[in-house]
Amino acid sequence: MRIVRTRAELREALGELRADGRTIGFVPTMGWLHEGHLALVDQARARASAAVMSIFVNPLQFGPNEDLASYPRDLERDTRVASQRGVDLLFAPDVETMYPTGDPIVRVVPGAIGSRLDGAFRPGHFDGVLTVVLKLFNLVQPDVAVFGRKDYQQATLIRRMVSDLDLPLEIVVAPSVRADDGLALSSRNAYLSAAEREQALGLYRSLRAGEEAFGAGRRDAPAIVGAARAVLDATPAVKVQYLELVDPDTLEPLERAVAGSVLAVAAHVGRTRLIDNVVLGE
Amino acid sequence: MRIVRTRAELREALGELRADGRTIGFVPTMGWLHEGHLALVDQARARASAAVMSIFVNPLQFGPNEDLASYPRDLERDTRVASQRGVDLLFAPDVETMYPTGDPIVRVVPGAIGSRLDGAFRPGHFDGVLTVVLKLFNLVQPDVAVFGRKDYQQATLIRRMVSDLDLPLEIVVAPSVRADDGLALSSRNAYLSAAEREQALGLYRSLRAGEEAFGAGRRDAPAIVGAARAVLDATPAVKVQYLELVDPDTLEPLERAVAGSVLAVAAHVGRTRLIDNVVLGE
Repeated sequence: MRIVRTRAELREALGELRADGRTIGFVPTMGWLHEGHLALVDQARARASAAVMSIFVNPLQFGPNEDLASYPRDLERDTRVASQRGVDLLFAPDVETMYPTGDPIVRVVPGAIGSRLDGAFRPGHFDGVLTVVLKLFNLVQPDVAVFGRKDYQQATLIRRMVSDLDLPLEIVVAPSVRADDGLALSSRNAYLSAAEREQALGLYRSLRAGEEAFGAGRRDAPAIVGAARAVLDATPAVKVQYLELVDPDTLEPLERAVAGSVLAVAAHVGRTRLIDNVVLGE
Repeated sequence: MRIVRTRAELREALGELRADGRTIGFVPTMGWLHEGHLALVDQARARASAAVMSIFVNPLQFGPNEDLASYPRDLERDTRVASQRGVDLLFAPDVETMYPTGDPIVRVVPGAIGSRLDGAFRPGHFDGVLTVVLKLFNLVQPDVAVFGRKDYQQATLIRRMVSDLDLPLEIVVAPSVRADDGLALSSRNAYLSAAEREQALGLYRSLRAGEEAFGAGRRDAPAIVGAARAVLDATPAVKVQYLELVDPDTLEPLERAVAGSVLAVAAHVGRTRLIDNVVLGE
């Protein structure tokens, strides 16, 4: 695996891959790699002949009171596991490389879809996500890029960006990867104490309860959301920000569920903010 | 010259040009072509081996009370003059081709630079411009794209978009083309009556007066802007929206001029809104 830090090195390395006729599958990450990220690498390798990963903790997508400074970083370990999983090229720029003239003035904004769910609690977050992802797409020029469904709103907005702005690549959204006990893998799980780790299971148990209500034939949102909410009400250590049944594309709240509707949750466990979701009827 | 209307036709035509090893110089326009547009074609041909033009009157950049419906259109004549000037490929999509799912939700926004000058009088205008230009760049994937300096703020924002979002192409900004009497060529000049056409000369005469003050050694903004303003004050048929001395990159107002500072004006002549600018010290 080749590791590059600058634009010039990236350009040269990509040029060599393309000169060999390789197609590019791209996995943008913020590092602290776990099996969820590595499953995205598998998808990239299945759909293209070279896998390119970026690791960049993007300041533009963190709010002033969020965890930019404490976000977990370990480039040495990330390099090892990315290489072992078959990444061909790792792009790990610093902030000055990505934003050489400071914060960008021209940005990509998500419109109404970006104000819902996480967007309502993290103003500006998706501006930062879409802007850096578009920059990375322009730098890497991949044939296909892979995102995880754990960040459902992000994946939805990126698919929408590609369609609204006519970006010349394909987006693949891969299923969430969970620990054996159901907790969705997330770099932010690193913040959890053992006790919090146990409490955090409430998120997935809650979503499972919503799935079971749907599986039992319930379709009205109050029944499905209520079943999920009841689990979290029994777990007072989990402080819910939102728990909503939404349309998979617009993310607007639904009164009735159909197969493909999304049940999504965000909550704090201690000081750690976690998100999770399930697609009903899968 | 080949004319294409759909994405599929465009893709095929561009594929043939690239298969021949041609580089692409791109001139996006809203049609009603005049010598200003055709000078951009000359630049595109000088810098690339194929010239691609688009003609699309972009609804997204018109405000609700602006001239979308009346904007002059003559695709037949445009086709003839574009072909005569050496355009190789003309892309003339309709609104449904450019916006197949309606107005885009994810958009490109210009930040503070877009709120100044024209942006202060045309809210949302530059969102629409940047969004459609990015879409066209993604569809055409040019090596170089050429814009006119008559639309100074637009050209500045597009250069900034390319740099902030890492778009893989070069931007060329070509000098304004003027009629013999100095009026900057603009498709909107078509709206002017003979009397208004005469009154409209006040814009350039005003800018010339500012240039002369600079040439005579004046550097303070009140002297330069005042010299320009005096000409317009003597032309009451010209209703000024702004007349400002600004930094060429940030478009922020300047207290003192240097070579390269921009003197820019927008005014209504009758119901027609015109803009013009000069770069001091050229």
